Amino acid sequence: MNTETIKARLKQQKIETPSWGYGNSGTRFKTFPAPGAASTVWEKVEDAAFIHSLTGIAPSVALHIPWDRVEDYSELKKHAQDLGIQLGAINPNVFQDVQYKLGSVTNPDAAVRAKATQHLLDCVEVMKQTGSRDLSLWFADGTNYLGQDDLRKRKRYLREALQQVHDRLPEDGRMLIEYKLFEPAFYHTDLADWGLAYLHAVSIGEKAQVLVDLGHHAQGTNIEHIVSTLLDAGRLGGFHFNARRYADDDLVVGTTNPLELFAIYLEIVQAENDPSEALRKHVSEVAFMIDQSHNIEHKLEAMLQSVLNCQEAYAKALSVDFDLLTEAREQGEVLKANRIVMDAFYRDVRPLLRELREEQNLPADPYAALEESDHLKKVLRDRQSSDVGGGFPS
Amino acid sequence: MNTETIKARLKQQKIETPSWGYGNSGTRFKTFPAPGAASTVWEKVEDAAFIHSLTGIAPSVALHIPWDRVEDYSELKKHAQDLGIQLGAINPNVFQDVQYKLGSVTNPDAAVRAKATQHLLDCVEVMKQTGSRDLSLWFADGTNYLGQDDLRKRKRYLREALQQVHDRLPEDGRMLIEYKLFEPAFYHTDLADWGLAYLHAVSIGEKAQVLVDLGHHAQGTNIEHIVSTLLDAGRLGGFHFNARRYADDDLVVGTTNPLELFAIYLEIVQAENDPSEALRKHVSEVAFMIDQSHNIEHKLEAMLQSVLNCQEAYAKALSVDFDLLTEAREQGEVLKANRIVMDAFYRDVRPLLRELREEQNLPADPYAALEESDHLKKVLRDRQSSDVGGGFPS
Amino acid sequence: MNTETIKARLKQQKIETPSWGYGNSGTRFKTFPAPGAASTVWEKVEDAAFIHSLTGIAPSVALHIPWDRVEDYSELKKHAQDLGIQLGAINPNVFQDVQYKLGSVTNPDAAVRAKATQHLLDCVEVMKQTGSRDLSLWFADGTNYLGQDDLRKRKRYLREALQQVHDRLPEDGRMLIEYKLFEPAFYHTDLADWGLAYLHAVSIGEKAQVLVDLGHHAQGTNIEHIVSTLLDAGRLGGFHFNARRYADDDLVVGTTNPLELFAIYLEIVQAENDPSEALRKHVSEVAFMIDQSHNIEHKLEAMLQSVLNCQEAYAKALSVDFDLLTEAREQGEVLKANRIVMDAFYRDVRPLLRELREEQNLPADPYAALEESDHLKKVLRDRQSSDVGGGFPS
Amino acid sequence: MNTETIKARLKQQKIETPSWGYGNSGTRFKTFPAPGAASTVWEKVEDAAFIHSLTGIAPSVALHIPWDRVEDYSELKKHAQDLGIQLGAINPNVFQDVQYKLGSVTNPDAAVRAKATQHLLDCVEVMKQTGSRDLSLWFADGTNYLGQDDLRKRKRYLREALQQVHDRLPEDGRMLIEYKLFEPAFYHTDLADWGLAYLHAVSIGEKAQVLVDLGHHAQGTNIEHIVSTLLDAGRLGGFHFNARRYADDDLVVGTTNPLELFAIYLEIVQAENDPSEALRKHVSEVAFMIDQSHNIEHKLEAMLQSVLNCQEAYAKALSVDFDLLTEAREQGEVLKANRIVMDAFYRDVRPLLRELREEQNLPADPYAALEESDHLKKVLRDRQSSDVGGGFPS
Repeated sequence: MNTETIKARLKQQKIETPSWGYGNSGTRFKTFPAPGAASTVWEKVEDAAFIHSLTGIAPSVALHIPWDRVEDYSELKKHAQDLGIQLGAINPNVFQDVQYKLGSVTNPDAAVRAKATQHLLDCVEVMKQTGSRDLSLWFADGTNYLGQDDLRKRKRYLREALQQVHDRLPEDGRMLIEYKLFEPAFYHTDLADWGLAYLHAVSIGEKAQVLVDLGHHAQGTNIEHIVSTLLDAGRLGGFHFNARRYADDDLVVGTTNPLELFAIYLEIVQAENDPSEALRKHVSEVAFMIDQSHNIEHKLEAMLQSVLNCQEAYAKALSVDFDLLTEAREQGEVLKANRIVMDAFYRDVRPLLRELREEQNLPADPYAALEESDHLKKVLRDRQSSDVGGGFPS
Repeated sequence: MNTETIKARLKQQKIETPSWGYGNSGTRFKTFPAPGAASTVWEKVEDAAFIHSLTGIAPSVALHIPWDRVEDYSELKKHAQDLGIQLGAINPNVFQDVQYKLGSVTNPDAAVRAKATQHLLDCVEVMKQTGSRDLSLWFADGTNYLGQDDLRKRKRYLREALQQVHDRLPEDGRMLIEYKLFEPAFYHTDLADWGLAYLHAVSIGEKAQVLVDLGHHAQGTNIEHIVSTLLDAGRLGGFHFNARRYADDDLVVGTTNPLELFAIYLEIVQAENDPSEALRKHVSEVAFMIDQSHNIEHKLEAMLQSVLNCQEAYAKALSVDFDLLTEAREQGEVLKANRIVMDAFYRDVRPLLRELREEQNLPADPYAALEESDHLKKVLRDRQSSDVGGGFPS
Repeated sequence: MNTETIKARLKQQKIETPSWGYGNSGTRFKTFPAPGAASTVWEKVEDAAFIHSLTGIAPSVALHIPWDRVEDYSELKKHAQDLGIQLGAINPNVFQDVQYKLGSVTNPDAAVRAKATQHLLDCVEVMKQTGSRDLSLWFADGTNYLGQDDLRKRKRYLREALQQVHDRLPEDGRMLIEYKLFEPAFYHTDLADWGLAYLHAVSIGEKAQVLVDLGHHAQGTNIEHIVSTLLDAGRLGGFHFNARRYADDDLVVGTTNPLELFAIYLEIVQAENDPSEALRKHVSEVAFMIDQSHNIEHKLEAMLQSVLNCQEAYAKALSVDFDLLTEAREQGEVLKANRIVMDAFYRDVRPLLRELREEQNLPADPYAALEESDHLKKVLRDRQSSDVGGGFPS
Repeated sequence: MNTETIKARLKQQKIETPSWGYGNSGTRFKTFPAPGAASTVWEKVEDAAFIHSLTGIAPSVALHIPWDRVEDYSELKKHAQDLGIQLGAINPNVFQDVQYKLGSVTNPDAAVRAKATQHLLDCVEVMKQTGSRDLSLWFADGTNYLGQDDLRKRKRYLREALQQVHDRLPEDGRMLIEYKLFEPAFYHTDLADWGLAYLHAVSIGEKAQVLVDLGHHAQGTNIEHIVSTLLDAGRLGGFHFNARRYADDDLVVGTTNPLELFAIYLEIVQAENDPSEALRKHVSEVAFMIDQSHNIEHKLEAMLQSVLNCQEAYAKALSVDFDLLTEAREQGEVLKANRIVMDAFYRDVRPLLRELREEQNLPADPYAALEESDHLKKVLRDRQSSDVGGGFPS
């Protein structure tokens, strides 16, 4: 691809930022209040819009319900649109109510399951008001001890709840089923891996898709292989981007192993370039979202860095010489194929991105723009730094 | 369950031992020759029959082709039957020919793919001669470097080969699709996890089932959860039992974490006790097989210990008080449910098993019987200890 | 060893329970309030004494400062003694003050380092008042990003603080240096593994010892090997017992892999039986402590189960036939040596322990005794169930 | 640093390649013969010299004894010197003799221990003849089963052997103690981690140093932290570079996570820049060596790629703006410090390296030079492709 084509593709890139990434969050040991952290959904939307104004590629913000519950979602939608962004995926929270101690939709108690399912259905209603396409489902459900519960029974409970929700989704709506190896459950997690999310999605229906969170895999897992598998199967709903070395560390995207982020975007680009129209359509619908938890970082700086790291990874992936690559692969030239891909990874795309931003009247240096911005001054001055803010996990 | 019921169930237990477990095997650093190791398939069948004579629960032996190739399989079948056992699963080897360096059924070269597929089809013919129900498929296929090959293309190649083989299986035959996280491929493996094996199996047809090898998972993976999932989905074809702490260590079954082996049998027992007839039928068809590699152990002793550890695990799982367990689960009594299960695990079932053996005219102490046996003396005396024996990986 | 010797040894066993294990604790997602959880240190000491009254082997309780800070420690000491137990290890908390966001004794800011060190020194004063032998040191210090800080500089800061504290310890006091692979730091942890704790301990002085927490290792780590190494080097200060499968899951001791707990006690027993008087003295000083976090479990039940699982593991380890074992090892009989050890593991020691308890006028069935106890009724009735209790991590 | 300083530093860089990297090697499943692979030590030295002629930074070759045993080492030394390189570290092999099945220097049998120790001492004599500074020690020693052997006894056996060897080293000689988590031992490895290697080194004497192999750690381990620790303690002897995702995959250096290789070089550069003269002297003595196993790659291409990836990583690490970095660290600017480091990582240093090569009359494009070389043509034409070559693990 020539530079102009690459730029054109880069202008289409979209990254959704999460409302909860603008509020305080922490580890189980401590939530340190972050200076200028947002505490209301209105402030979070303002922060998301500000990040979009710096980057041009973060045009929507995901919501978490009930953290971001408001009386009138049309008002919130208007607030976002006035600031130049959209409301994005709706994320129901079914893990903080005291009744969910032993699970939500897989709880042994039918009343708790019903309550959790109702909350999911309520969130479908929210989608309709916010105009959101995606219901993004993460469950903390699981057990801590061998024998604690009946694994097959829980699987059926989960299926029932997901099916009900699926059948109430709006015409163009989707549900994204997220999986996670562990935490907060430490023996088994009802949706432990992509295989389980896929198994449910296929049985439930066309609107059920799989969500890949980069921090939710066992050590050694090849995530880009999962991405390619789900793309090929037509079930890649979207991503929750973040970085990790140990567990679900939820760090700034691309900081632990930038080659992995690049490898994921490489699968995306190959699908975008594929001759199959169905595959190209499928990949065009994938939701690219950030989900990270800041324990010691400045909120806006962390989100900006994550968004820009996604942009760099995509720009590098677009730079691969795919004709050469195909030839090397067909010839079985193992290391040459690797070097063709690595050549793109080692390309310094920052000058190109600076150029791209200037063409779009965006700040050439977004970090400097953040540092000098009125928005930053304002939030540092005006917002109550609070230990019990609206962030994650609050 | 009362003791008599438990004994009756234990008398139905079956463990298939692998021919390659009786020959020399090693690590990439060295294959140490084991005294008395078998080097022909005829000897391996004799060893397998001997293990069955000690335990009463190892009535069949799995074959690896071409390692165990013979001119006339009916003769081999008769040899086994004369010794009191059956020929079991057929395991095609498509990883040691020099052409398979970059893969077998997923090789970029069509000629290599065709050759590999033909070998699988040839093994289907062997099944018909040996009377084997199961074709057990493990592929070493994968890549070592990012970019080396096209992941989606390889997925399609794999599907094509599996479909061809499936469609040629005997009426009552099955194919067991084994997955493995890594080794010998170190970037991606075409069948990396149960999700991939399941995805293919479901698309291919009813005779395609998933094979769970205990050593093929990422660190932390809850294997019994996978077992329960596959049982519920009707796709648990069988097991390759062994033990591991680090990678695919292929140690004697039950030596690293005996609680895990027990937990797996606990899922089996719960399925066997399930009200659903379909589930009970499905679990009754599961193939329980050992697959281990002995680097420093005596072959017969290692196999005996593995078989007996499976028996102990099953006996303990049968001892769970399921009525109490169900009640505790329904009440959400987290630790009580765990203790009910652990009570069975901590039960010393060895006196019961000794009694069981005596009832069946089996040696009360199989280890002593091995040590004093003529068979052991004979193999130590007669067999050439060789560094290039017919074992795994030879 | 004969039964009487085993019983005599079991009567010497001691397990220290942690005050914070009796209060509320949770994951980063949620702290669910536990019915009857203690919220003051006085209540926690009562709970610890109650657990001791049920088991006879939990005669002390560890304190966390400032969570358990009181005006007059002699009063608290008397409270404990009146209830039949002692105050145990003092655990300084230098991870929850807002100034510790970037570290405590390794913080880049000298004022913060001084503050943290001062808190450690204050805790040395507490030791003198409580009569505690051990200062148990865990630091959350580390970084989240490559480049964030100077690793060697932080190492030197840590050394300076530890040295100061060491030099102020009481005559018979010790400091236990705990290590942890990760969490809450996700790039590097200043005390990441036993090697670092050991390196510091050796340089600092004789009173510096290493603390092994069972949940603080990388996947696959052989913990009993570390235990044997530290015993041999004279630097095993003590244990924080808990169970884990994934990360620092902090579950009830012995629930994930009971063989590992047994293997650790096996190293202890072998050291206790060693001909070297120095080694026997060293092992006699090891502190056996529980450190776990209950997210969904009942507090008292969880602690009781942990204490009893330690007792069973020790009883099994004492049951090994060491003469046979030594012989098998010297003969290089790999699997026989393993089976000798496993024979002890599979022994059902519960009848023996019941007998032991009866001899000591302890409840034969501690779980039943807990369930029927006035103490349980009282705490469920009287204690405020609170979401902001004094537990860990509060 | 300005460009000229960076270039001057790059001209000092040295990477030692291993003789066994030029011969055939494989996994436990199969050793595929590589076209043009060397089979004698004379050929391996020629290949190493050729790689040096392409890169200018690979001026020595490590030997493995007995694989590379010759009658007259002075002749081999002259052969190397005539080709423009030196003989480097001597690597004794004590894992392939049949007597080493249960260990070499830690074997329960005293005669086997003596034999292994004698081989190490013989290798010290080889060092004197080859003029090698370093004896590089890797032991396969360990056990496969709980209970198999006495861990503390084996630790003492290991110490005795190491001490004897240390005391016979040449005046300026060193011994590098390598550690490895697992493989080929699967229960415990006598030198399992850096802590054990360090503990022994410190007790043994000044010539004992620790060797860090990038593939020998548990999942998640922060290797650069270990590097910084050993540098600070004056015990970093050297590296065995390679890449891995799962176990000890032994892939081409820098292919799995190039950021990790950069992070390691960053610690090296910071030590080289340190005000402490002792530290600068220590880091100047570190041995940078490659140790990899090619299963499917072309030998010369793989080695070239590894050497060049080391060069790129070092060039990037030299490009960090350390003044800015120090300031950001002192201010606690977490993400700014990270970005300063990442700025250097994302720098495309390939134009600089091309310039550097041209200044040194080296091929500007080493891959093209390899492809067009007479050496490549010659080895492909003349060398017997053999399945039983002199490579690793042969």
